[in-house]
Amino acid sequence: MKNIAIIGAGGFTGQELIRILASRPDVRLRKITSNEYAGKTLLEIFPALAVGEIKHLVFENHPENSESLKSMDFVFLATPDNVSMYWANALHGTGVKVIDISGAFRLKDKAVWEKFYGMEHTAFPLMDSAIYGLTEKYREQIKNASLIANPGCYPSSVLLPFYFLRDFLELFEESIIIDSKSGTSGAGGRKEKDSLGYSTVYENFRAYRIEAHQHQPEMEQEINNLSGSRFKVRFTPHLLPVFRGIYTVAYMKPKSLPAVDMSKIKNTVKAYLDKEPFVRFYDNPNDLQLKNVQNTNFADFSLHLDVHAGVFILLSVVDNLRKGAAGSAVQNMNIMMGAPETMGLL
Amino acid sequence: MKNIAIIGAGGFTGQELIRILASRPDVRLRKITSNEYAGKTLLEIFPALAVGEIKHLVFENHPENSESLKSMDFVFLATPDNVSMYWANALHGTGVKVIDISGAFRLKDKAVWEKFYGMEHTAFPLMDSAIYGLTEKYREQIKNASLIANPGCYPSSVLLPFYFLRDFLELFEESIIIDSKSGTSGAGGRKEKDSLGYSTVYENFRAYRIEAHQHQPEMEQEINNLSGSRFKVRFTPHLLPVFRGIYTVAYMKPKSLPAVDMSKIKNTVKAYLDKEPFVRFYDNPNDLQLKNVQNTNFADFSLHLDVHAGVFILLSVVDNLRKGAAGSAVQNMNIMMGAPETMGLL
Amino acid sequence: MKNIAIIGAGGFTGQELIRILASRPDVRLRKITSNEYAGKTLLEIFPALAVGEIKHLVFENHPENSESLKSMDFVFLATPDNVSMYWANALHGTGVKVIDISGAFRLKDKAVWEKFYGMEHTAFPLMDSAIYGLTEKYREQIKNASLIANPGCYPSSVLLPFYFLRDFLELFEESIIIDSKSGTSGAGGRKEKDSLGYSTVYENFRAYRIEAHQHQPEMEQEINNLSGSRFKVRFTPHLLPVFRGIYTVAYMKPKSLPAVDMSKIKNTVKAYLDKEPFVRFYDNPNDLQLKNVQNTNFADFSLHLDVHAGVFILLSVVDNLRKGAAGSAVQNMNIMMGAPETMGLL
Amino acid sequence: MKNIAIIGAGGFTGQELIRILASRPDVRLRKITSNEYAGKTLLEIFPALAVGEIKHLVFENHPENSESLKSMDFVFLATPDNVSMYWANALHGTGVKVIDISGAFRLKDKAVWEKFYGMEHTAFPLMDSAIYGLTEKYREQIKNASLIANPGCYPSSVLLPFYFLRDFLELFEESIIIDSKSGTSGAGGRKEKDSLGYSTVYENFRAYRIEAHQHQPEMEQEINNLSGSRFKVRFTPHLLPVFRGIYTVAYMKPKSLPAVDMSKIKNTVKAYLDKEPFVRFYDNPNDLQLKNVQNTNFADFSLHLDVHAGVFILLSVVDNLRKGAAGSAVQNMNIMMGAPETMGLL
Repeated sequence: MKNIAIIGAGGFTGQELIRILASRPDVRLRKITSNEYAGKTLLEIFPALAVGEIKHLVFENHPENSESLKSMDFVFLATPDNVSMYWANALHGTGVKVIDISGAFRLKDKAVWEKFYGMEHTAFPLMDSAIYGLTEKYREQIKNASLIANPGCYPSSVLLPFYFLRDFLELFEESIIIDSKSGTSGAGGRKEKDSLGYSTVYENFRAYRIEAHQHQPEMEQEINNLSGSRFKVRFTPHLLPVFRGIYTVAYMKPKSLPAVDMSKIKNTVKAYLDKEPFVRFYDNPNDLQLKNVQNTNFADFSLHLDVHAGVFILLSVVDNLRKGAAGSAVQNMNIMMGAPETMGLL
Repeated sequence: MKNIAIIGAGGFTGQELIRILASRPDVRLRKITSNEYAGKTLLEIFPALAVGEIKHLVFENHPENSESLKSMDFVFLATPDNVSMYWANALHGTGVKVIDISGAFRLKDKAVWEKFYGMEHTAFPLMDSAIYGLTEKYREQIKNASLIANPGCYPSSVLLPFYFLRDFLELFEESIIIDSKSGTSGAGGRKEKDSLGYSTVYENFRAYRIEAHQHQPEMEQEINNLSGSRFKVRFTPHLLPVFRGIYTVAYMKPKSLPAVDMSKIKNTVKAYLDKEPFVRFYDNPNDLQLKNVQNTNFADFSLHLDVHAGVFILLSVVDNLRKGAAGSAVQNMNIMMGAPETMGLL
Repeated sequence: MKNIAIIGAGGFTGQELIRILASRPDVRLRKITSNEYAGKTLLEIFPALAVGEIKHLVFENHPENSESLKSMDFVFLATPDNVSMYWANALHGTGVKVIDISGAFRLKDKAVWEKFYGMEHTAFPLMDSAIYGLTEKYREQIKNASLIANPGCYPSSVLLPFYFLRDFLELFEESIIIDSKSGTSGAGGRKEKDSLGYSTVYENFRAYRIEAHQHQPEMEQEINNLSGSRFKVRFTPHLLPVFRGIYTVAYMKPKSLPAVDMSKIKNTVKAYLDKEPFVRFYDNPNDLQLKNVQNTNFADFSLHLDVHAGVFILLSVVDNLRKGAAGSAVQNMNIMMGAPETMGLL
Repeated sequence: MKNIAIIGAGGFTGQELIRILASRPDVRLRKITSNEYAGKTLLEIFPALAVGEIKHLVFENHPENSESLKSMDFVFLATPDNVSMYWANALHGTGVKVIDISGAFRLKDKAVWEKFYGMEHTAFPLMDSAIYGLTEKYREQIKNASLIANPGCYPSSVLLPFYFLRDFLELFEESIIIDSKSGTSGAGGRKEKDSLGYSTVYENFRAYRIEAHQHQPEMEQEINNLSGSRFKVRFTPHLLPVFRGIYTVAYMKPKSLPAVDMSKIKNTVKAYLDKEPFVRFYDNPNDLQLKNVQNTNFADFSLHLDVHAGVFILLSVVDNLRKGAAGSAVQNMNIMMGAPETMGLL
């Protein structure tokens, strides 16, 4: 029986972690913290999640120090970047395994991190030991990791397909265009709160932060260690009037159109996916839709070559709160604790 | 006082035409036809449109021949492509001005038309006299036209900005990527009816018909007569869970990055737009959103250069039922009848 | 040409007033105030409303005193209750006609007002001269009024049908049950702002403030001056996941079922409505829906007698921002300035 | 290991049954039938449900006779009323336990059934052995039942609270007003398919079938065996622009206001609920909302007495696909097979 704490359990990702973990027999949710909801029970705050004994669990204030967390096996950080830095540091060396769902430990280049996150990185030495939690790519390293930097939601939708396309990346020119659309639960943090009112989002659609988004260097970093090529990622995120789900279309220009053998690419991808429980390939790109992955840990993708215009197209969907956040975080926990990787996720 | 008939007045475009024309003092809606609603009044079928005397107007069956239409000054065809072919032919030479909102007369190449529309074109000789109704580009020809091929909704969102960018198209490589997202009123015709149920569309998002969409050659045709370059358009349409509005992002690769002088481009565009009542340029691309144009005849756009990835980006929004269909149709009618171009549209 | 100011032009009601008044030739919007948007143009803040010359109108801070308002013919107060009290007082005796869309002057009983609005009424002497702006009922008094207390949105949906049922109210027992459902633009003021986020409203539905809502005494006051009976109103408001529209179902128990002659009631209602431009009666209650009145000044209603359970049912719909606020405010202005009552509203 | 078949597995209720049953270790989904999807796998039709081995399950055509169903332990009928009659008859006496989610066996009065369902009842002799599947009320009879008539979605939202209020029903007059609002997944069957398009439902709200709905006699039948009183139910259903959830408000008039002791009523209700896993009481009626029960088997309710108007109010919410259909069906199956009642539902 593993003991688990969730710091920042009041947000969308925290709720999703609770939903996934609530009914597992092999882990126990010991501590959920939220300064906003401190003193209230799960039943009072999230009645739809209040199943079984867990409904009497009481939200606590964030702890003052790491003392009360040392008896945990896993601490999930569903916190802002600066808060995650603090806790990762505080728990370092205690033997408690930390799964950070913020962006604090995702970029290996300190200058790039500080530029895109707009603050100083106060725990950068930990970056060396942080394993990027793209499970399908880093399974082996995750097994013994003490600090997981869980991938961002947009990068999850991009990097999973790219990982299975790795053998073919040399075929394309260096500019990769990523056009992503996200539900409101993924697109907004505190900073965008004012723009997420019902009357602003409903019956609307818009791109946002197209000049600079911190998920752009994250994608670029991870794509660029897949092959010998150096890609430049153009990233355009949009806000969909839905609650959950990310739909990504990536466009790449083949260096040589005849060299792109779609049949070979698809067969290779399918062979790679044979043993993957959560990543699915669709032959028909028109079959991809948010509904197919919402509330699941699946990542679906498809490929298409536009011979007329000379453009290679990748379409992909994930649930930003599941495979793009809490789902993959639990998948990583499963690996770290030696449980079946799909436990609680199917 | 101009007499007006709308053939196919029961669909979304027909309704929008009624909404725009209902309260004008200088035109009179004489005939609205719909086999589905024949015998019912406007008040019974569309209570929200039933203002003033027009509410007693009775839907008629589509006429058997053109006899009853000959007293009209304008006939709007809000009909499927094959039906539009029939009526354009039947009214040819009668002096009645026809504004066709279907795709029947938009492509100058018969083989391309028949390939993308999947049928024989039975009225192709009329194509010579059909004027493509992109008002801002073809104002002069529209004045005396007898048959207008009103632009498609997606092409409207693309071609208006491109027209004002025409001086700079030589700067870019030949592949243009168009990633468009449309509300349900624009994305679906009869053929997709089954996929437009509430439970399919709500909280969902998907691309559709990415292999071939008839608006792709329409865009390509009109972009390719703007400059000496020959562009290839890659077009990816998506279905948004909203009712009206199209959001388009176009990506182009500069032949030489330093040659793209954004300041000069923006100034040129702004100068062109100085006298345009409906096309608006935004300096900040993050300001573009569907809400800014819904229920209006505006077409908004913005530009951004991603220096890092070497990609030029155009963002644009229109209301698919207004500037993308009924609004521009009325704008064209205004020009043809010598009324102020903005009459009924501001 | 009448000069008009809107105090509080940045909210939903203010926007709707601008939308309705923008293109009228007989009035001119001289001043729009909003502390939030001061210094910005209409084009910058509400691009969809920025039609014609009005787009260059600049939002001002709320004025410090009434001096700059004295040249106005009409001042609309789209402000919170306490702000409306201030301005109604400040403009009293200046000859400027005031149309107040807040609740400040709707209740004739000071104690009831102060109980339901939770504050002291600092301008109660003006209540004597305030005319309740339910146009169809108070047309004559409105003509020469200097201060209009425009009805609340929920009461509009209830009182219009009740006014046309006034000859039959004696048939019913004293308890009237009003079960209303409103879009978010009507249900929320500043106080409920936190509960109107997209993730809270979408795919949700709930009643709110069922113990006490200030529209309950407003309905009761106006129903009780229609007949000799003294009714007690039970009011249950709900929040719909839509932007605009109110759907009300009222239930009444007949004192004697046989005495309720539905045919006679309907004929009387229809006769009354014969000359009403905005109130419409539907024979089939299943035909009532929000879509029929959204973005219009119509108020639709229908009646049904459940013989089995002995319950009389009234169903009604209005657009809370039009007939329930800005639309009826302009209808009242039309009467006060001698313009056709439907001017700008059809 | 129990063997299970779902006849009519392609609809919303069928999907929900699959979702609930998919990962249970003690039951096996052996057969799912759907003439529409025959030959396709679960993975192809409902990718979000395609977890584990079940994803390869192939939809079959409805069987020609009961032969292939005789090896089943349970057959769920998620079929239209007339189809359910056929299968209940065909499986009668085979030992296979049938859980019918249609309305075929819910009314004990043949004439009333035929009037409200508009067809002849061809299997009425089975009605005697059919147990109405309101679990909390009929637990004992359900244990050994061979045919369960699972309650309708609206009745579930009404009858659960009424069952726990049974000691106090004598306090009220005979007319009960039920004002219910349902998401589209519950309100529509095949017959209303045309009215459930996205453009009809979104941003809309309406009552429907207010003259006669087959759930009205179902509620009346079950309320009237709770006490000595004979109640008459007035039922008004509405269509919400959400996918799942039912919100019901019931209004009753106390015979004597002072006799209604809210404190005593609430305490009695709470005591009854002490051991109920799925029915929850809220002290504050404003806390009730669809979000609290969506995707769960909970039924939440609250009570309020309006002393001013003399009206007793009951508010209740259920998920129409869970506690209102598939959830309670599985709850009943659990009881019939001797499994913990909450198995798979928490």
